Amino acid sequence: MKAAVIGSTGYGGIECLRILQGHPEFEEISLVSSSQAGRSLNSSFPHVSHLAKMYLPFDVEQISKQADLVFLATPPGFSSQYAPSFLEQGKIVIDLSGDFRLNDPDIYEQWYRKPAADPKYLNQAVYGLSEWFENEIKTAQLISNPGCYPTATLLALLPLLKEKWINPASVIVDAKSGVTGAGRKAQQSTLYSEINENLRPYKIEHHQHIPEIEQIAGKCSGTDVTIQFTPHLVPMNRGILVTIYAESLNKYTRKEALQLYHDTYDCHPFVRILDSRLPETKAVQGSNFCDIGINVDGRTGRFVILAAIDNLMKGAAGQAVQNVNIRMGCPVTTGLDIAPLYP
Amino acid sequence: MKAAVIGSTGYGGIECLRILQGHPEFEEISLVSSSQAGRSLNSSFPHVSHLAKMYLPFDVEQISKQADLVFLATPPGFSSQYAPSFLEQGKIVIDLSGDFRLNDPDIYEQWYRKPAADPKYLNQAVYGLSEWFENEIKTAQLISNPGCYPTATLLALLPLLKEKWINPASVIVDAKSGVTGAGRKAQQSTLYSEINENLRPYKIEHHQHIPEIEQIAGKCSGTDVTIQFTPHLVPMNRGILVTIYAESLNKYTRKEALQLYHDTYDCHPFVRILDSRLPETKAVQGSNFCDIGINVDGRTGRFVILAAIDNLMKGAAGQAVQNVNIRMGCPVTTGLDIAPLYP
Amino acid sequence: MKAAVIGSTGYGGIECLRILQGHPEFEEISLVSSSQAGRSLNSSFPHVSHLAKMYLPFDVEQISKQADLVFLATPPGFSSQYAPSFLEQGKIVIDLSGDFRLNDPDIYEQWYRKPAADPKYLNQAVYGLSEWFENEIKTAQLISNPGCYPTATLLALLPLLKEKWINPASVIVDAKSGVTGAGRKAQQSTLYSEINENLRPYKIEHHQHIPEIEQIAGKCSGTDVTIQFTPHLVPMNRGILVTIYAESLNKYTRKEALQLYHDTYDCHPFVRILDSRLPETKAVQGSNFCDIGINVDGRTGRFVILAAIDNLMKGAAGQAVQNVNIRMGCPVTTGLDIAPLYP
Amino acid sequence: MKAAVIGSTGYGGIECLRILQGHPEFEEISLVSSSQAGRSLNSSFPHVSHLAKMYLPFDVEQISKQADLVFLATPPGFSSQYAPSFLEQGKIVIDLSGDFRLNDPDIYEQWYRKPAADPKYLNQAVYGLSEWFENEIKTAQLISNPGCYPTATLLALLPLLKEKWINPASVIVDAKSGVTGAGRKAQQSTLYSEINENLRPYKIEHHQHIPEIEQIAGKCSGTDVTIQFTPHLVPMNRGILVTIYAESLNKYTRKEALQLYHDTYDCHPFVRILDSRLPETKAVQGSNFCDIGINVDGRTGRFVILAAIDNLMKGAAGQAVQNVNIRMGCPVTTGLDIAPLYP
Repeated sequence: MKAAVIGSTGYGGIECLRILQGHPEFEEISLVSSSQAGRSLNSSFPHVSHLAKMYLPFDVEQISKQADLVFLATPPGFSSQYAPSFLEQGKIVIDLSGDFRLNDPDIYEQWYRKPAADPKYLNQAVYGLSEWFENEIKTAQLISNPGCYPTATLLALLPLLKEKWINPASVIVDAKSGVTGAGRKAQQSTLYSEINENLRPYKIEHHQHIPEIEQIAGKCSGTDVTIQFTPHLVPMNRGILVTIYAESLNKYTRKEALQLYHDTYDCHPFVRILDSRLPETKAVQGSNFCDIGINVDGRTGRFVILAAIDNLMKGAAGQAVQNVNIRMGCPVTTGLDIAPLYP
Repeated sequence: MKAAVIGSTGYGGIECLRILQGHPEFEEISLVSSSQAGRSLNSSFPHVSHLAKMYLPFDVEQISKQADLVFLATPPGFSSQYAPSFLEQGKIVIDLSGDFRLNDPDIYEQWYRKPAADPKYLNQAVYGLSEWFENEIKTAQLISNPGCYPTATLLALLPLLKEKWINPASVIVDAKSGVTGAGRKAQQSTLYSEINENLRPYKIEHHQHIPEIEQIAGKCSGTDVTIQFTPHLVPMNRGILVTIYAESLNKYTRKEALQLYHDTYDCHPFVRILDSRLPETKAVQGSNFCDIGINVDGRTGRFVILAAIDNLMKGAAGQAVQNVNIRMGCPVTTGLDIAPLYP
Repeated sequence: MKAAVIGSTGYGGIECLRILQGHPEFEEISLVSSSQAGRSLNSSFPHVSHLAKMYLPFDVEQISKQADLVFLATPPGFSSQYAPSFLEQGKIVIDLSGDFRLNDPDIYEQWYRKPAADPKYLNQAVYGLSEWFENEIKTAQLISNPGCYPTATLLALLPLLKEKWINPASVIVDAKSGVTGAGRKAQQSTLYSEINENLRPYKIEHHQHIPEIEQIAGKCSGTDVTIQFTPHLVPMNRGILVTIYAESLNKYTRKEALQLYHDTYDCHPFVRILDSRLPETKAVQGSNFCDIGINVDGRTGRFVILAAIDNLMKGAAGQAVQNVNIRMGCPVTTGLDIAPLYP
Repeated sequence: MKAAVIGSTGYGGIECLRILQGHPEFEEISLVSSSQAGRSLNSSFPHVSHLAKMYLPFDVEQISKQADLVFLATPPGFSSQYAPSFLEQGKIVIDLSGDFRLNDPDIYEQWYRKPAADPKYLNQAVYGLSEWFENEIKTAQLISNPGCYPTATLLALLPLLKEKWINPASVIVDAKSGVTGAGRKAQQSTLYSEINENLRPYKIEHHQHIPEIEQIAGKCSGTDVTIQFTPHLVPMNRGILVTIYAESLNKYTRKEALQLYHDTYDCHPFVRILDSRLPETKAVQGSNFCDIGINVDGRTGRFVILAAIDNLMKGAAGQAVQNVNIRMGCPVTTGLDIAPLYP
């Protein structure tokens, strides 16, 4: 297969390259960038200078000739505009942006403050939370890859919600992310000196991943779910940890809860249910794993569920390739059998 | 005045020295350490090598001759045993450990897994949350300095609890701390390579600061308060940020809430209520400030209150000196007029 | 006294404020910024929000009315243009930029690639390496504050050079700096994600501090000195460590060398000669100290001299205030008796 | 093939596992640890909990039955004692410790302060600097894997030394390392709070890698080489950067020097000669690359050569596997075609 990565000057795009170049089913990967067209990959990303690649200009016709699959790792508002052209050319599109995640255009416009995609394509898009939408992904032409926070949150939350073990109005997600999530654009607020030795909450009440989580949580549980969501920026490069609080609707034991999670995920190689330790981001660094820990607090009657992922892997490029594997019928771990880098 | 700092080979103790050596009312500071007695301060803490100090052995008689005030920056179980001797000598004792924070010996023993202090002294101890117990501190002989997490949590929570604006059973505290909170003892789990690029929850449901918060929250609000508390270790040296969730009992606006906090704290120079930004730990680094931010989420009906402190300052040595100032009748900022180090 | 800090949206400028606001001789400090004029300090630097200051516009007349002293913490090319106006108004000017450090305009233009200042003022400027030019500083109207690398390098090197113990053609300076040295301007290369977990050399052979070091080294030793200088960017906020190699011209012992350094610096409170440990940046963090360590390698016949400073303090704002103290006849430590922040 | 990794509770040992488990020629990897025998890998290294491995006790007989190859990632003094037993069983031994690197037992004992290995085995050991001793490695039974600092230093230095372009008495190596090089043993000096925001030189004149570099540099150039070597600890997990200074013996241009390095290394896939940028550690993170940059300073007549490696990869486990590939006749990149993790 041949793939093109659009927007490959960002961290998500270049992570696609890292995976795809070791993926046995891909013989060629084109890198596309409007701003760097004609320049060497070396100038943007010296760590892959040995690949001796050039950036190609963004040209739908040309890309469609060279690629069977298109990864869109572009800023909000780009995919909604250009994904349809690739779809019309019969290409499979994996969109890593948020443009096709929300089914309702009004909600998209309210949270993203941009024009929504054509409803026709919104309806066609399959939400690529690999472990929960495998069947839909198998035949999808447009895969809308989940956000980093929603991936960790939903994997941790859906078993309890689906089984109706928790009060859906009680869910609080306290989320913490490494700084690569803020992208590679030069800005004062993410300079090293500003972030290092600092812990900073942001976008309280306003993060665009809120409606995404609520939509999928509602869909999978058959009830309305309203979540409280607070993201924080942590001085580290990679990693997301979500700490989720929810009221238990019954006196479930930790043992019962562990069993539920094992039953849900033991057939999925990238989700590890931790019986005897707590998740931490370093344990998944550079890999496609999602580590989930389960606590039941007898004093308060709440579940405290934790999940850790690498935001650029299971939270972006890793899950994108996982979805491609599902779509292509390869084993789901193809090209993704990458051990975490520790320490 | 003359002070002795017992346990001055740890981060809390040495921070006392940093403050006291610039405090105009202190003419002499003795450093006491069993393990380093007779050795130069230089060997433990090169940054203060210019002070050319020696560690003194731990000897109650001797220390009592040299000091009017004794700071105990010692591990759990030490103060409960030795503070009484200093009190009997008529010394003022500021205990930075947890040994005198919990009034009920059974609760202490349950959470600390050590024998509790003599109830006589537990009853005598004044809880040194400076902004809330000023009157009691003014005449205290034994000041029990609050824990780092309880300081940030209580300052943020008490106005709402006291005014009964929130459901006391709904309080969730998601807490994040820098690594100095784990002390200076050599252990694999806090090695640089293990902590760096890692975010790790710990002691879920079991942290000994839980009963401390509940006791004071209950005392100040006149109701039973049960909190959910989850601490996390963040890859940075200093700083605590707490993110507190609580159900609003009425449709309070952010403006009303800001007013409540300004009314409560505007006369207290170390608490800064933030009208137009969110707290972050770097903004208080090295200082005695507590920054508080207030959010009212209309979608969920919850307050989201944030507070940031430097765990070694307002969370330990800074508040200890603030309490000494109150006790001695000095202006509360004496020796503590230290601007945050930024960046 | 009253001071104005021009360029106080950068790290060097705001560090001047941190010091001056605790300095007993300064009753008022004006902050001047073209870009932020009329805006609150709070919006740029939340850590000093309690000072409730506004940025003033850059207006020579106005500033000259309000200030006795002017600190210029501005980018290259600004001071050369505007310092003369303040001098003509009779103000004392402390320039933290490089515009008045090089006496030879041609050399300035070659290394800075900007037009040099008027030679009249270049000649008038006194190089503010406090420990070596105290007499000149006492009467200076224009103090050219040294660069961060030159400060550490010269303090470490001058005793050996002046005594002619080393070959002046053999000097190699391997320098390492924290990231605040790169300033606060938004740029991709100093984003957190790019710097964190990275060690990067830069400007080999081309750093503008090379001619500055050579000029002063030559002046103090009476010989031509050509140095090899390689700067590196280290993932930390503050701190410079220089490792200096030079061929010994005789079989000097470490003891003799230590004596030479003690003789040179024991009367200077901010230089600490380390007899029994090596300098490290954390031991000077936030303070005006320069820690110097001396090694004599018998195998190779070289001196290996190390010096550590906080680049924003002894390398910028701290030394600026030290120079003001010298100029004003205050004790040199006034306002600078700040213990290092550890850890 | 089957491999055993002895000492797999340290960072070097577990990095062997990370590589070998993705290496197509290895069907089984045994992990051996005296201290953790019988315990799950999970308890030491949660990131590889999915492998569900147990630590085996250290038992030469047993290990020899299960493994064709033995990796010794053990502290100094262990291999010298136990490697012979494995060699006598006909096993191929790759020793990652320093026990077989120095041919002269006296020099070993002087620098390591431990008894040296039996000279018989010292003579048999082949120094595993893959790019320079390929022929010897092809038939070696005992491969002594180079130290991390020597690997970076020698790869950067040998072309110039061998061609006699530099004065061998003039070589200065200013070396900087991430903290994983200090191992995983609990000690106060490598706690997070001590290392973070700190830059620290150590073991000046005394590092045990000095004689290793001198021995190999002398062997490859046919002259005595005495190096000045200063290591520094940098606040990051992985990575070594060496900055090497040497007097040019002629007016070589940068172009000529680049050509020399390209001629030397273009046939070796893990050495990347950088024409248009400087090496930095992040560009090799997690990979087996060594990036080399070449500068010729016309002002001073010196070469300034820079090399960056990941100390756990090309500086330890990566080069160990590279040597195994050479020994086994596999393509040298087998199992090592791992792109750097960026950022």
